[in-house]
Amino acid sequence: MTDGYGIDNLPYGVFSTADGGPRVGVRYGDQVLDLAGALGDPAFAAPSLNPFMAQGRARWTEVRAQVADVLTGGRAALRPLSDVRMHLPFEVSDYVDFYASEEHATNLGRMFRPDSEPLLPNWKHLPVGYHGRSGTVVPSGTGIVRPSGQRRPPGQDVPDHGPSRRLDVEVEVGFVVGTPSPLGTPVPTGAFADHVFGVCLVNDWSARDVQAWEYVPLGPFLGKSFATSISPWVVPLEALAGARVPTPPQSPAPLPYLREDDPWGLDLSLSLSLNGQTVSRPPYASMYWSPAQMLAHMTVNGASLRTGDLYASGTVSGPAAGQRGSFIELTWGGKEPLKLADGSTRTFLEDGDEVTIGGTALAGRVSLGEVTGRVLPAVPS
Amino acid sequence: MTDGYGIDNLPYGVFSTADGGPRVGVRYGDQVLDLAGALGDPAFAAPSLNPFMAQGRARWTEVRAQVADVLTGGRAALRPLSDVRMHLPFEVSDYVDFYASEEHATNLGRMFRPDSEPLLPNWKHLPVGYHGRSGTVVPSGTGIVRPSGQRRPPGQDVPDHGPSRRLDVEVEVGFVVGTPSPLGTPVPTGAFADHVFGVCLVNDWSARDVQAWEYVPLGPFLGKSFATSISPWVVPLEALAGARVPTPPQSPAPLPYLREDDPWGLDLSLSLSLNGQTVSRPPYASMYWSPAQMLAHMTVNGASLRTGDLYASGTVSGPAAGQRGSFIELTWGGKEPLKLADGSTRTFLEDGDEVTIGGTALAGRVSLGEVTGRVLPAVPS
Repeated sequence: MTDGYGIDNLPYGVFSTADGGPRVGVRYGDQVLDLAGALGDPAFAAPSLNPFMAQGRARWTEVRAQVADVLTGGRAALRPLSDVRMHLPFEVSDYVDFYASEEHATNLGRMFRPDSEPLLPNWKHLPVGYHGRSGTVVPSGTGIVRPSGQRRPPGQDVPDHGPSRRLDVEVEVGFVVGTPSPLGTPVPTGAFADHVFGVCLVNDWSARDVQAWEYVPLGPFLGKSFATSISPWVVPLEALAGARVPTPPQSPAPLPYLREDDPWGLDLSLSLSLNGQTVSRPPYASMYWSPAQMLAHMTVNGASLRTGDLYASGTVSGPAAGQRGSFIELTWGGKEPLKLADGSTRTFLEDGDEVTIGGTALAGRVSLGEVTGRVLPAVPS
Repeated sequence: MTDGYGIDNLPYGVFSTADGGPRVGVRYGDQVLDLAGALGDPAFAAPSLNPFMAQGRARWTEVRAQVADVLTGGRAALRPLSDVRMHLPFEVSDYVDFYASEEHATNLGRMFRPDSEPLLPNWKHLPVGYHGRSGTVVPSGTGIVRPSGQRRPPGQDVPDHGPSRRLDVEVEVGFVVGTPSPLGTPVPTGAFADHVFGVCLVNDWSARDVQAWEYVPLGPFLGKSFATSISPWVVPLEALAGARVPTPPQSPAPLPYLREDDPWGLDLSLSLSLNGQTVSRPPYASMYWSPAQMLAHMTVNGASLRTGDLYASGTVSGPAAGQRGSFIELTWGGKEPLKLADGSTRTFLEDGDEVTIGGTALAGRVSLGEVTGRVLPAVPS
């Protein structure tokens, strides 16, 4: 049994084979269970998890038990992973990106706003977030064309236009909404597990030069919207019950709508690899705000949820240098190049570079899989 | 014939009747032409314009000619507008909001950042924009529940939570994408009319107190995401050909990818009414950036377009006091209350207030219709 894909995990994805179009499957070891065939629910014949996710929490629990039964009963028709192609696992409705790591927000504040306090006054009162482009969320393995855009190089008064010179990644964890909520009705922290179906890994590709020039006053836009990659297997929240931990102490105490009765911090071990070499191990347990707090904040104004909404944690960066979740942090704005095993150095990404984010929980018993992508040359202008 | 809905306009919307579910229609005077019935294309039997919009520009032109033929030939089966209910006209894929009025950006800069230059260094080099929440775009007439959220009142060190005290509107024009574009390929300004199907009116409801506290450094989020209202009838770009005007002079000259061979400024007359009284007449022709420039900028990094993408202009504010497109500008941050005809005054919106945005082009020959909404009391927490 491949590590992390045993009976404790059972993540959901969308796969196709030579003989059939995209449909829902569960990964078990190095094999895939075809759910439409195994359980007979037409929701699993869809090319996305959305119809199943929309059925709600009670159904998620029921199906998980049925899948475990089928697999342990030896009655399952499984396909080898090598015979399937993986697709985007769900249709992304709205995509929101948070900024929930204190270390990351502090590091970026120091670099982007060197003359002021790195952490802004609102940061410890609310999970800062913004909307990203849902139409450019792509499945793991999609090539990432180096984006072009406006940037103002240091010492220049006016911007120019060209391929980004500071292409970066952000190691993040994504939360996938299954159960919608009506417009006008906030979702409390305690309803997190009723609405969130599962978890995936997210690479929030970032063009730092474009971002630095464009982001005031309305936030990141083209520096992020060219691509966001997600892992193919969505791990059900239920599989991560044993990974729950308290968030770090929150001071000042959050306002009542952000308080949690049961903590939803998660002890996940993440990794960032460049061309096969691990360059960082960000610890998700260090995140200041929990995903239940993010959800409550995102809806406190009455914003509705839709099946397929994706919200990501923001870059996961721990306190140690080897725990930072982006190259801008690992190389301190490009000033301290990384030395790689092959003798080369790297600040930001070069064409041909392949980046892989991995993650596990419960000492490896549950794998979050991988999200990977290779940088392709810019389109000539 | 009702003004603005003659043969020169022919806008598209989605309507239902007592005897049939949502489907595509064209407004003609005070009547609606049922397109599925009239033209026999199943795309018009859909509950949104998306399938028709996805057919591309040549088809849009063809259908417009067929509709004019049917209407002028007197062969049309029309339904009175009073018998139909209007719905959201299209499924919104991604929603982007720009900030293209120099007057508005300057006014807000003065109020939000009184200690620095009102217009930030990037503003004249690129159309500043950000992603909004597409799941909370609602049709005209939807009640707007006053949002609650965090805000830090003046003189307070820490934020509190409660219903917004500074609920506002933004008068905007929206551009609806019909033809998609592939990931990795920028769309030039010259391809604007190949991709954009038509125009609607947008009310970008805004909770200014929430926005002011949350928006650094990642931009507006909950201050905007509770609701965005759009008008029911999408006016085809073709109907606005005669309303094209040059944008105001752009200095410095924009980078090459933002230059236009033919200008796409639009001479649209907008109006903002509160409880039936017109309080402002924003002139769209004063907008600094054209919608073709916004589209080219939005995709310069290779971001793809999807059918149903909506991008809005940002608040339209002219140079005169009576041309400002938001209450925060009309009342200068609440310091100069508006005196209304009934003797009352208003700074920000009160429960029960009804706001209507209207628009016309070509001296009233083409109506953009109206987008309206009434403020409902906050949900008790």
